[in-house]
Amino acid sequence: MTNKSIRLSEVVDRFGGTLIGEQTISVIGIAPLSDATENHITFLSNPKFRTQATASKAVALILSEADHLAIGDTYSGARIISSNPYVYFAKLAQYFFHINADPVETGIHSSAWVSPQATIAPSAYIGPHASVEAGAIVGDGAWIGAGVAIAKRVVIGAQSKINANVSIYNDCIIGERCVIHSGAVIGADGFGFANEKGKWIKIPQTGRVVIGDDVEIGANTSIDRGALADTIIENGVILDNQIQIGHNCHIGENTAMAGCVGVAGSAKIGKNCTFGGAAMVLGHLTIADNVHISSGSMVSRSILEPGQYTGFYPLAKNADWEKTAAIVRNLGSMRDKLRVVEKAIKQNEANSKNEQS
Amino acid sequence: MTNKSIRLSEVVDRFGGTLIGEQTISVIGIAPLSDATENHITFLSNPKFRTQATASKAVALILSEADHLAIGDTYSGARIISSNPYVYFAKLAQYFFHINADPVETGIHSSAWVSPQATIAPSAYIGPHASVEAGAIVGDGAWIGAGVAIAKRVVIGAQSKINANVSIYNDCIIGERCVIHSGAVIGADGFGFANEKGKWIKIPQTGRVVIGDDVEIGANTSIDRGALADTIIENGVILDNQIQIGHNCHIGENTAMAGCVGVAGSAKIGKNCTFGGAAMVLGHLTIADNVHISSGSMVSRSILEPGQYTGFYPLAKNADWEKTAAIVRNLGSMRDKLRVVEKAIKQNEANSKNEQS
Amino acid sequence: MTNKSIRLSEVVDRFGGTLIGEQTISVIGIAPLSDATENHITFLSNPKFRTQATASKAVALILSEADHLAIGDTYSGARIISSNPYVYFAKLAQYFFHINADPVETGIHSSAWVSPQATIAPSAYIGPHASVEAGAIVGDGAWIGAGVAIAKRVVIGAQSKINANVSIYNDCIIGERCVIHSGAVIGADGFGFANEKGKWIKIPQTGRVVIGDDVEIGANTSIDRGALADTIIENGVILDNQIQIGHNCHIGENTAMAGCVGVAGSAKIGKNCTFGGAAMVLGHLTIADNVHISSGSMVSRSILEPGQYTGFYPLAKNADWEKTAAIVRNLGSMRDKLRVVEKAIKQNEANSKNEQS
Repeated sequence: MTNKSIRLSEVVDRFGGTLIGEQTISVIGIAPLSDATENHITFLSNPKFRTQATASKAVALILSEADHLAIGDTYSGARIISSNPYVYFAKLAQYFFHINADPVETGIHSSAWVSPQATIAPSAYIGPHASVEAGAIVGDGAWIGAGVAIAKRVVIGAQSKINANVSIYNDCIIGERCVIHSGAVIGADGFGFANEKGKWIKIPQTGRVVIGDDVEIGANTSIDRGALADTIIENGVILDNQIQIGHNCHIGENTAMAGCVGVAGSAKIGKNCTFGGAAMVLGHLTIADNVHISSGSMVSRSILEPGQYTGFYPLAKNADWEKTAAIVRNLGSMRDKLRVVEKAIKQNEANSKNEQS
Repeated sequence: MTNKSIRLSEVVDRFGGTLIGEQTISVIGIAPLSDATENHITFLSNPKFRTQATASKAVALILSEADHLAIGDTYSGARIISSNPYVYFAKLAQYFFHINADPVETGIHSSAWVSPQATIAPSAYIGPHASVEAGAIVGDGAWIGAGVAIAKRVVIGAQSKINANVSIYNDCIIGERCVIHSGAVIGADGFGFANEKGKWIKIPQTGRVVIGDDVEIGANTSIDRGALADTIIENGVILDNQIQIGHNCHIGENTAMAGCVGVAGSAKIGKNCTFGGAAMVLGHLTIADNVHISSGSMVSRSILEPGQYTGFYPLAKNADWEKTAAIVRNLGSMRDKLRVVEKAIKQNEANSKNEQS
Repeated sequence: MTNKSIRLSEVVDRFGGTLIGEQTISVIGIAPLSDATENHITFLSNPKFRTQATASKAVALILSEADHLAIGDTYSGARIISSNPYVYFAKLAQYFFHINADPVETGIHSSAWVSPQATIAPSAYIGPHASVEAGAIVGDGAWIGAGVAIAKRVVIGAQSKINANVSIYNDCIIGERCVIHSGAVIGADGFGFANEKGKWIKIPQTGRVVIGDDVEIGANTSIDRGALADTIIENGVILDNQIQIGHNCHIGENTAMAGCVGVAGSAKIGKNCTFGGAAMVLGHLTIADNVHISSGSMVSRSILEPGQYTGFYPLAKNADWEKTAAIVRNLGSMRDKLRVVEKAIKQNEANSKNEQS
């Protein structure tokens, strides 16, 4: 597969920025500073890599005004000055991805099964062995991969891509331009049970999952349907792989969660939050906007103030950990000893004063 | 879809309790105190919501004897007195779910594949693109969703519901009235290897997974088959999403695990235990009946005494955490300093005594 | 199903070791010391079970030279002396598994869909409702389970087994003799986004996942494709269930990870490492060869020296944990108090000296 190329003048026409140098140079892709060849454009998003940027073999470099002032003259290729080179990279990479992608598929694959009561846009694609039940709607340009199971009355918004072997339970709503990765499960029953003398009595989960636009959901992530109300994922949320979202959660716009995060039921999480990998949130908590939780941290209380929060045990050589863990287990006794010592010191000081007086 | 309704007199005929007030009122559903309308029945399961109960718009209220004594007179609608309003809610919600459910499906979908050597009860349903291999048995009223893969000689008990894209490996046994959610994997090989000079030699996993009756298994949960013996999940166990159960584990009746829990191989867990989200249990441990593990806790030793156990690092603002984590890493040195101080105090006290004597 | 049997003389012909006792005894399987019957061979891999070994009902025992010297005379059955009885067990168990396995399946199932542009070896098997897209290659003797989705240009090496409902994205490479368990997702997009004024701009993930030979991947494990370069899993790596491997990771030969481990993007992990369950590794870290991480530990910095590393909060009764956790939160204050005390002691000692001088 030979990659299509694009002229730098066309790049700035599409994505803005100020082009300095040869306008007619063509590039076939964007690559990191060290990997780029004379067919690539590259980008500098962090000033600490300025030296590598000047040494890059790329024919063109995207960089900030400040970096241009510092190293622009020493770089032999063309330059595009942008207020945010990393975002510029993302958009240009999307463009290269788009022009070099496999041809767009449309229509219903011969091996798929679609209920006569489902509505499929003509520009949508339904892949091999996918199934779409009665009442479901698949929007314009949506792409449904192999083995995807779309249950009754599900709505898939326009241009959304549902990858192979995703399962979406009845009545759930997926917005437009979403990407859901393989193995993800949307709308399974929330974990709701009443305990009657030791036995668990299931509480039917009759809410839905309602997902906004431009949401990305990673591989093998699970989002449970609400018990009575809905589980809500707002526009622009990005979820990595292996994430668990419990019933009735509400996740605010543009919040991002890294892999293996777990959120228990009925948590209300604000906008523009970030969660590091394997962070956990207990149920019924409220997390304000702009809260950032470090990886591996257990959120056991509501957080109403923006900021960075952390809580994981520091790693150590095993022998050192064994020693500190034993002390942690007995911190109460250590504190008591310290109090005894403090008291003795105070007594001693009092005695000294008396002696001196 | 208009919901079917039920008279209060029929409710108490079915589910017990003492009905006070208008017998002929009909309700179309059960809703929380604040969401209920004049078509709903609601329930009060926690005395701290008594004020909200009296203000609820529901035409009927399920409540305990004690709550009825406290607020029964002030509530304008009908009341059903029950010894356990939350369980009453669960059962009544199940009933509403049942009478409003989509029509029962039976038979083998035209796109499914069923081995001629499999046995499918006439009242069972096999969904689109599901596959059932030779020797498998699907019981009365069992429901097999789209894309489910049922391998050789698997048994699915009567009335069990296996949701879309579940995979069940050969020879595993699922009891009656179980629910298994999408993406769950039952009976994959346990993680058993012998190390020969750095290389891993696979130990074939020839046991099964044997699951009792009334078990619920969440989305994307994995339960490995035993190495030589079986992995056993007893009756009434409920497992949430994204859980990992290693080979040869034995989980006792009615034990409940929240999302993201991991249990390593050969752990023996008692009855009526609960595990908070992301709790982890090391291999070959024994956990007694009625043990409760908090979320995010690592169980690194057997627990032979009932009770609540916890072990996670407390969350803090990141700057505070950095400070405390640095001290945790050096607790040994802090303890040594305390010992020096204690010794000095004792020496000092001894000296004082000597001086005084 | 009656198991096939094998003579002890044939066992040593195949797997080596020194046979002492009756050569013509046949066994139908290998079982643990306590479960073995007179039709089984058993094995002793740990000297602390010597007493159980002598009491085993098995007709034959695999044991080390040292254990043979200690108990060989007291064991009534035949013995096979081996330098590594546990590895011997693994290989012999594999053999029994092989001779008693269901007949080998080959060919393309009538319900599978295979693109005319895909290449399937005649000795390969494509199961029910599996799909294989254009350009994909399935090697000799490979086994593709029900509902597996193999995307464009994927390569599945000879003798690899891909279990039901696995999803493999376009262009990924799987080596020979690999086993991938159900629900695993290979090659979903890495979690790469640029933030433009609060909104996430997706960075296309154009690398692949490249998996070596003899790799085992557990159920519901996810391995993301690289952003620009590839994600690499070297030969002999074994991954348990529910594991997350981020984009651009590189995992060295024969490294083993237990269930629920998470590895963030661009981590470079050496050879022959082991990770206990639910261990987590942050992004862009380097882990040397022969590093061993305990279960539940968060690796937040590179580890350049081999050894065992640990970091999880010790479990305690909940009341005790509440006490110690409160102290941990305030360790800074405790340290300050200790410093005050130390200073007072020093002052006191200085005063004493002055008095004495």
